[in-house]
Amino acid sequence: MDKTFKILLVFVPITLIAKFFDVSSIVIFILSAFAIIPLAKFIGEATEELTVYTGPALGGFLNATFGNATELIIGIFALQAGLIEVVKASITGSILGNLLLVLGSAIFFGGIKRKEQKFNVTAAKASCSTLLLAVTALVIPAIFLQTSAISSTGGIIEKLSIVVAVIMIFSYFSSLLFSLYTHKHLYTEDVGKYEARWSIKKSTIILFISTVAVAFMSEILVGSIEPLVATFGWTELFIGVIFVAIIGNAAEHTSAITMAIKGKMDLALQIAIGSATQIVMFVAPLLVLISLFFPIKMSLVFNTFELVAIIFSVFVVNSVIEDGESNWFEGIQLIMAYIIMAIAFFFHP
Amino acid sequence: MDKTFKILLVFVPITLIAKFFDVSSIVIFILSAFAIIPLAKFIGEATEELTVYTGPALGGFLNATFGNATELIIGIFALQAGLIEVVKASITGSILGNLLLVLGSAIFFGGIKRKEQKFNVTAAKASCSTLLLAVTALVIPAIFLQTSAISSTGGIIEKLSIVVAVIMIFSYFSSLLFSLYTHKHLYTEDVGKYEARWSIKKSTIILFISTVAVAFMSEILVGSIEPLVATFGWTELFIGVIFVAIIGNAAEHTSAITMAIKGKMDLALQIAIGSATQIVMFVAPLLVLISLFFPIKMSLVFNTFELVAIIFSVFVVNSVIEDGESNWFEGIQLIMAYIIMAIAFFFHP
Amino acid sequence: MDKTFKILLVFVPITLIAKFFDVSSIVIFILSAFAIIPLAKFIGEATEELTVYTGPALGGFLNATFGNATELIIGIFALQAGLIEVVKASITGSILGNLLLVLGSAIFFGGIKRKEQKFNVTAAKASCSTLLLAVTALVIPAIFLQTSAISSTGGIIEKLSIVVAVIMIFSYFSSLLFSLYTHKHLYTEDVGKYEARWSIKKSTIILFISTVAVAFMSEILVGSIEPLVATFGWTELFIGVIFVAIIGNAAEHTSAITMAIKGKMDLALQIAIGSATQIVMFVAPLLVLISLFFPIKMSLVFNTFELVAIIFSVFVVNSVIEDGESNWFEGIQLIMAYIIMAIAFFFHP
Repeated sequence: MDKTFKILLVFVPITLIAKFFDVSSIVIFILSAFAIIPLAKFIGEATEELTVYTGPALGGFLNATFGNATELIIGIFALQAGLIEVVKASITGSILGNLLLVLGSAIFFGGIKRKEQKFNVTAAKASCSTLLLAVTALVIPAIFLQTSAISSTGGIIEKLSIVVAVIMIFSYFSSLLFSLYTHKHLYTEDVGKYEARWSIKKSTIILFISTVAVAFMSEILVGSIEPLVATFGWTELFIGVIFVAIIGNAAEHTSAITMAIKGKMDLALQIAIGSATQIVMFVAPLLVLISLFFPIKMSLVFNTFELVAIIFSVFVVNSVIEDGESNWFEGIQLIMAYIIMAIAFFFHP
Repeated sequence: MDKTFKILLVFVPITLIAKFFDVSSIVIFILSAFAIIPLAKFIGEATEELTVYTGPALGGFLNATFGNATELIIGIFALQAGLIEVVKASITGSILGNLLLVLGSAIFFGGIKRKEQKFNVTAAKASCSTLLLAVTALVIPAIFLQTSAISSTGGIIEKLSIVVAVIMIFSYFSSLLFSLYTHKHLYTEDVGKYEARWSIKKSTIILFISTVAVAFMSEILVGSIEPLVATFGWTELFIGVIFVAIIGNAAEHTSAITMAIKGKMDLALQIAIGSATQIVMFVAPLLVLISLFFPIKMSLVFNTFELVAIIFSVFVVNSVIEDGESNWFEGIQLIMAYIIMAIAFFFHP
Repeated sequence: MDKTFKILLVFVPITLIAKFFDVSSIVIFILSAFAIIPLAKFIGEATEELTVYTGPALGGFLNATFGNATELIIGIFALQAGLIEVVKASITGSILGNLLLVLGSAIFFGGIKRKEQKFNVTAAKASCSTLLLAVTALVIPAIFLQTSAISSTGGIIEKLSIVVAVIMIFSYFSSLLFSLYTHKHLYTEDVGKYEARWSIKKSTIILFISTVAVAFMSEILVGSIEPLVATFGWTELFIGVIFVAIIGNAAEHTSAITMAIKGKMDLALQIAIGSATQIVMFVAPLLVLISLFFPIKMSLVFNTFELVAIIFSVFVVNSVIEDGESNWFEGIQLIMAYIIMAIAFFFHP
């Protein structure tokens, strides 16, 4: 593992100490964020090590679950704290971040030394189709709400959200069946083709410990959001879309960019687009279902601004990808789209 | 012809008897629906037989008119009954049904025994471009209405609808000129390459009788909708989008899926996408023009929910089709999109 | 240069005389429009001549600036007159005009004698991606405004517009770096591959004189718009979208169609799509920044109707282009889309 990530582990005890001495919420937010980043990386590494032993079928399932463990855990604590807007915003931010910032950076940094980078367009387009379906699934409840009389929709929106969430999770497992079993030849083999460095026991222990540690840090992070809103006047929307999303996806971000610089564009695309797809097809609906056990339910209705940002990021990525090659300028375009959206979310009241 | 369809003809007299004894509207709705399905199939067969004699030019025209005779006839009776919402909803439902349910089932059932099914992407994309233009033509009046002061738009929306309808029908005939004359090499020849089994006289008589019978059954079907709304609390929107649309398109549905299972994916695509295109470019604007002779005029303004569903189904199909091959997972995705929309229409107040 | 354009120069003195005798505003509007068309063509020719001497780097910059000089000058005078709606509408109209009317005519007239016209799909798609990014940049402020409480957005929308405008201009210069320097091999060389016919001195003088003359004529044109609105009841929206847009782009229109008829489809696409891209990525944001020096500021917020028209025209063009070949029917479709939109803008209150 990258040495930088190991060094960042020092933030875990620092965060605990800071929390004990009850320092200001902005400091705690930053410290816990830096603590989560290496832990998320450890969860990812341990999961990958385990998949070497389990084979692709169970491995795919492990990846789907623990690959998003950090986002899920942060999401669950935010649900518990009633910060529904933060949860939704961090889902939006994860999608935008992966599709525009991560993919854009990967394409840009991978493209500055090369005229163009080619990749397997069939696999990339398959992911884009899945994303478009996922976006459709998000649009329907939102438009439903907007086109109905407000008084009558309370319970209906909740029911509709649950049904759509179940269908999305079913589709997500269909996509695993597709990519891991019936059509695995379309996907690059690079991911699993390496010797395990850790034993099963070591991997399991690291996975367990880092997951528990992420849970602790996430609770601290989420606890610092409300004071942050009060002190700085930042909205929950902005904190969720930008900061929480980046923290939850930092590990994927660095991998995708590293792969692109090495010229492994297929892998970079798979990480970035795959991560966005997992968030929207699996994490978001799962949080909707989990929220049923909490006092405040989360619906699948995103606000119009979030939805439009998601829709356009999917279209922009689709357009950039469909010729099967990328260049630095396409990277710049994706990054610019992210910056415009981030600034708009910052200004949004 | 399929034996199943012939057996269904027994529902024609049963419907008449049920109507005579004035049984409950839900029973009459179901009986007349089952009666229309084989009659629609007969209209289709008789038209195809006739085109063998007439040659492609007149044949194309016959196909364009009688290929949608059932939808048109049901539409006209619904216009006469003032059920404008049902008419619009059945147009929406025909588009969604053909693009998502029929195409999805064709791709899915065609794909379970094959790794992938290839098809001619140029013809498929040409249809998708036409669909996108058609969608644009539908979006403009709707946005026009939404962005204008309400008081002043009554007459203007009507005028705009008529102009757009005329342009759409003109475009539709241009597309016939393209596909039947100047660029017919792009389209599969399978459709017309068979010996006529019926004589001209037999075809004409069958065409005449089944069209008249469809008219009778449609009047009965439409007459049972209002009591149905009153009794079950289903909305006109839901009845139109799901039931009326499926009844009107049942014949196309079975053909497309049968073709796909036989591996004739080009033909399946042509039927499903072509049918959706005909509905939106020809049936919908023609009904707008026909409605000028009825007391209640129909505009081309669809409600936002219908419009968003149509737009996203076109985008999803476009994305699935553009690589020139399909697999079972793409079929699942289209079917899931249909189910989500159908459920949303069911819940929609 | 085309002789027709030289003859049109006679409208320059005629406009001045008409203005002196204070004839009716509609006559002055038409005369000054006809006077601007050949002057715009002269600016274009002189710029092209100069680029032969300057080399591609400075030439690209000259082209970017003077290629849109007419639109910019008309825009500045309209800003000065406080006709913000006309400026925005003429930007919308330039985009729609180039993407639908010009490209549609080029594809149609180029396609009537040929089965299909092939073109380099990579360059065409790169422009479409840029357009889609530009559209995203326009959508964000508009949705921002619609989803915010009205009271609090005044100053924020202005700030957001400025930031987005700066990012768009930066992206535009990145695209020049891409098309003129790092990836110039993707673009057709036809444009610059000719001997200079004019000396540097002659080119500079012609460029200077025609720019000044365009400025005079634009002031007269803009001055006649308000009386026109009062007399004919046409809206600023309609005048801007249809007339002002066509006047500003007449030179590009004729070139693109001429190239397509000669079979140089790549060049025709480059002019039409490139011109739309320049308007939206450079002229529109530059006018936003210039408006800061005027009493009434222009934001980047287009009205919903304009925005939807722009979005769908980009999608339709994208769909038509992505198979790398065009035919007459695709041309018809684009023209029909333009006509529908033009009629809707005419009726729009």
